[in-house]
Amino acid sequence: MTRLRIAEIFGPTIQGEGALIGEPTVFIRAGGCDYRCSWCDSMHAVDSAFRDTWAPMEPAQVWEQVRDLSGGVPLTVSISGGNPAIQDFAPVIAMGKAEGYRFACETQGSVARPWFADLDMLVLSPKPPSSDQVVDWDAFEACVQAGRGAGQTVIKIVIFDDRDYQWAQDAAARHPELPLYLQPGNPEVDPDVPVAAQDVADRLLWLVEKVTADRWFRPRVLPQLHVMLWGNLRGV
Amino acid sequence: MTRLRIAEIFGPTIQGEGALIGEPTVFIRAGGCDYRCSWCDSMHAVDSAFRDTWAPMEPAQVWEQVRDLSGGVPLTVSISGGNPAIQDFAPVIAMGKAEGYRFACETQGSVARPWFADLDMLVLSPKPPSSDQVVDWDAFEACVQAGRGAGQTVIKIVIFDDRDYQWAQDAAARHPELPLYLQPGNPEVDPDVPVAAQDVADRLLWLVEKVTADRWFRPRVLPQLHVMLWGNLRGV
Repeated sequence: MTRLRIAEIFGPTIQGEGALIGEPTVFIRAGGCDYRCSWCDSMHAVDSAFRDTWAPMEPAQVWEQVRDLSGGVPLTVSISGGNPAIQDFAPVIAMGKAEGYRFACETQGSVARPWFADLDMLVLSPKPPSSDQVVDWDAFEACVQAGRGAGQTVIKIVIFDDRDYQWAQDAAARHPELPLYLQPGNPEVDPDVPVAAQDVADRLLWLVEKVTADRWFRPRVLPQLHVMLWGNLRGV
Repeated sequence: MTRLRIAEIFGPTIQGEGALIGEPTVFIRAGGCDYRCSWCDSMHAVDSAFRDTWAPMEPAQVWEQVRDLSGGVPLTVSISGGNPAIQDFAPVIAMGKAEGYRFACETQGSVARPWFADLDMLVLSPKPPSSDQVVDWDAFEACVQAGRGAGQTVIKIVIFDDRDYQWAQDAAARHPELPLYLQPGNPEVDPDVPVAAQDVADRLLWLVEKVTADRWFRPRVLPQLHVMLWGNLRGV
């Protein structure tokens, strides 16, 4: 089997954001990304300059590490990145599901994969204008289609400013049938700079006030709990 | 129809805790409670000393106020308290559902009501030892049964200390089929005392470390976002 490029495997901790917020989770962070978001908080899993730190691993090695970290007790495994969809995680998912583990995947929705249908939760996060990326909506639609067999597909959008917020309303309107999560952006991405929980709270408040003032009651609005708890520290 | 005793109706804001965390919500806080939890954060809706502040309202008046606050745009309505189950919210729920609103109810599970079956979300919060209350498990079972027709029933347990944590494991084991949410307790309940978001984060971290160390992967572990955002201020 093809080896996977893995930036880090860590946990168990709780999922800090989105539909599975609070859920005990082991994270597999894949190395490599087809995007270069201006505010990326995981450049160590994105930029080729870090490529030497991405371990080439057989799927069975990846799976063994997840099993070790969780003591063989089934839980939710979140495959993130980078963009994990540029690699083939089908073998890892098959190994884990055979032992009762559940799988979530977070991707921007630029590359569709058949293994999306094997997931318990597919989180599609189209990137707003502040990222300086341009969404390919045909590719995004292909991801939604590929996820039809998944337990659930949701949309999560990060919001940094008013322009992102307007964009999110249009983007979400493409799929009124999918649960929607909004998350205030985190402008501080240096792991060495501490983040004040109060700053996370203040950014959440800004977004809560926007949706309630507009009576836009569809999205759930959630912070990044891990940033509250650990700032931008890696591996938690 | 019998009048309802209502402590406050407020929103829209986001649900700060539990299964619907982040969900835009209007809250109906019922006045009156059969419990007296040592750390109650809503004594203004519990203690008879506040009874004069509970408005006697016809169900239609309650409903009109919810509709006004939400501008007639359907959203989730959370009925809390006090213990809302000591009153009859069936008429309010019927009025709201006819207009496309969704209903959640938060109760300790001491009084079962047929209208639990009309809810989209029934949150049962049995109180741990630190509350100085004693759970009547027969009454709790009756609540679980009454909620069988609801969209979803979940258990939420507040944890202040190690004893509560042990108790939560036993309590949750009674219903392995129900989603489980754990929430660190908030020892500061004075609305005039500001709460540091960092303190909320620290208490969450304590609980996250307990469940992950024990490999107890069933519960979701979540903070009270509203306490992060507004401290103990009422009406938000």
